[in-house]
Amino acid sequence: MKATIERATLLKGLSHVQSVVERRNTIPILSNVLIEASAGGGLKLMATDLDLQIVEIVDAAVDQAGATTVSAHTLFDIARKLPEGSQVQLTAAEGKMLVTAGRARFNLATLPRDDFPVIAEGDLPTKFDLPAATLRQIIDKTRFAISTEETRYYLNGIYFHVADEGADGPVLKAAATDGHRLARVTVPQPEGAAGMPGVIIPRKCVAELRKLLDEVDGSVELSLSGTKIRFGLGAAILTSKLIDGTFPDYSRVIPTGNDKLLKIDPKSFMQGVDRVATIASEKTRAVKMSLDRDKITLSVTSPENGTAAEEVPGLYASLGFEIGFNARYLMDILGQIEGDEVEVHLADAAAPTLIREGEKAPALYVLMPMRV
Amino acid sequence: MKATIERATLLKGLSHVQSVVERRNTIPILSNVLIEASAGGGLKLMATDLDLQIVEIVDAAVDQAGATTVSAHTLFDIARKLPEGSQVQLTAAEGKMLVTAGRARFNLATLPRDDFPVIAEGDLPTKFDLPAATLRQIIDKTRFAISTEETRYYLNGIYFHVADEGADGPVLKAAATDGHRLARVTVPQPEGAAGMPGVIIPRKCVAELRKLLDEVDGSVELSLSGTKIRFGLGAAILTSKLIDGTFPDYSRVIPTGNDKLLKIDPKSFMQGVDRVATIASEKTRAVKMSLDRDKITLSVTSPENGTAAEEVPGLYASLGFEIGFNARYLMDILGQIEGDEVEVHLADAAAPTLIREGEKAPALYVLMPMRV
Repeated sequence: MKATIERATLLKGLSHVQSVVERRNTIPILSNVLIEASAGGGLKLMATDLDLQIVEIVDAAVDQAGATTVSAHTLFDIARKLPEGSQVQLTAAEGKMLVTAGRARFNLATLPRDDFPVIAEGDLPTKFDLPAATLRQIIDKTRFAISTEETRYYLNGIYFHVADEGADGPVLKAAATDGHRLARVTVPQPEGAAGMPGVIIPRKCVAELRKLLDEVDGSVELSLSGTKIRFGLGAAILTSKLIDGTFPDYSRVIPTGNDKLLKIDPKSFMQGVDRVATIASEKTRAVKMSLDRDKITLSVTSPENGTAAEEVPGLYASLGFEIGFNARYLMDILGQIEGDEVEVHLADAAAPTLIREGEKAPALYVLMPMRV
Repeated sequence: MKATIERATLLKGLSHVQSVVERRNTIPILSNVLIEASAGGGLKLMATDLDLQIVEIVDAAVDQAGATTVSAHTLFDIARKLPEGSQVQLTAAEGKMLVTAGRARFNLATLPRDDFPVIAEGDLPTKFDLPAATLRQIIDKTRFAISTEETRYYLNGIYFHVADEGADGPVLKAAATDGHRLARVTVPQPEGAAGMPGVIIPRKCVAELRKLLDEVDGSVELSLSGTKIRFGLGAAILTSKLIDGTFPDYSRVIPTGNDKLLKIDPKSFMQGVDRVATIASEKTRAVKMSLDRDKITLSVTSPENGTAAEEVPGLYASLGFEIGFNARYLMDILGQIEGDEVEVHLADAAAPTLIREGEKAPALYVLMPMRV
């Protein structure tokens, strides 16, 4: 293998693929990036953690086709430190890869290309496109609710599934929950998604996908089966195993009969919660909300720190009562509201609360109250 | 106590003082900031960790003089989250301090003002001024060499002392070393410093002082005895205990007979070291320098990663030889060189190496080699 590549091009490609590589690996080759130079020009960079795999094609002048694998983080660090604008020569021979640029020469240890594990995609019968902007929005509005409890592995991702909503027609839904809060986004069903299995996309795949989406305009090509999903993002292809579990029937926890409606400016609401939560204990972060006619009082009482209270104006016409929430969870949700009014549908101090911008809004949130 | 203060003024003052407060304290009042409102107007904010104390006077309208203490980090967090431009009312009564701004009210737990420990400065007979820019330079060029080994507590700071250099007249010197490298800055002796005792200023004091110096123009007033030092920085006064120990006679380790001189551009030298060190093991960070006539080759050999080499042009006319350095230590020094040429005075592969911009440069560095 012998190829020449612009330092900036190499750096950008490696920045994407090295991010998939774990810092510690019991299997040495998983620390490596596969570099494959094609006779026609261009390099294929590939990295995997056995569950998630990324392949990116980058421009390069190829003198001699071939492939090898070297430490992904080391090569990325080298590319980062090479002078801007330099041309990087990659030459693989005799179990080493020579990297030269300007006056610098690196002779890196390699592992054989044939030992590099590749995720067998198998058949991915469902294929559809989603605008990158839609996929960004789906992820941003749901990922904070993904559970980090490893024992509930089936909650460690975002659940994508299709449904037919009658009047609203066929839709694609994405949901995440950790048992304390639920976030769901509903978008019109893209062509080709009908009949797809419900799939749980793991947290790490979501994180890597979201990073790549920052650099994508236009559409993302999704292909999936019941066990694997593949995202085509222009020069990069991300393939992930899906979580092998059953996502709970979350529609049961979305309250439909909450009869107390608060309409409030999400920004001043969030800032008020943030301020009073300053004195809340690290552990519970509990904030009390006292609802009165068109007046909401947020308060915290802490045995060590004292008390905090703030009144926030809002439209509220039902019976006054008090309810407690985890400040962090409430702020996560309010931080995703883009408009200048949010609807908070309440029932009582023990019942799940529904939060959304309006009936037609794509996103919907459910938050469990806390005893305060 | 009752006072009104601009949120920005309170925030800035607290940002300085809270930084002295440790996150964990076995003595509860050390978590607090002392707030004292003077009848004449203005608030005094004070924090301490028993070794280091900061006092800052900030503008405020005082309705009622008085003093109390509240959690420094909590009050700082509150000030941070209050709306920009708001007026903050502080009212202490009945063991609480009420903080109000806009619609927010905090009633914070306090501890009695009289329990707040104050460092007794005693007599500080030596008094002199140093330009803030000079003090910044002294700190920046020496602090990286301060030892973090707690067993060698007498090296956990910067040693300030005076000397008379004969031809160059009386000087003030600042030195730091961890046994592997030494950094020393020499400046003309300020009026009033003659006869001062040698003092070791602890690392934490150095760090806090350096932060405050970013906001100071003009001069800093130093006052010191053999056990304490005080820095007057306009509205802020920093007082610290000194390290009670004997700084070693470091002049012994500054080589005077190194006969091999390399003159080199510190930037390309540093970038070369940084690049080849990419593949060095985390633990040793050893880089080999091979000196030949006007050619320096930097190289690293790593059993896991492979090899790296880079040639850097430089002026060298002595006998060729090889020497090893810790890349991190070498880069720390090179990063402090401002000009476009640095002198590296070498003797042999086992001898301390002297690095400086020139004979007249205020800063001088000594670096111990490593076996490579």
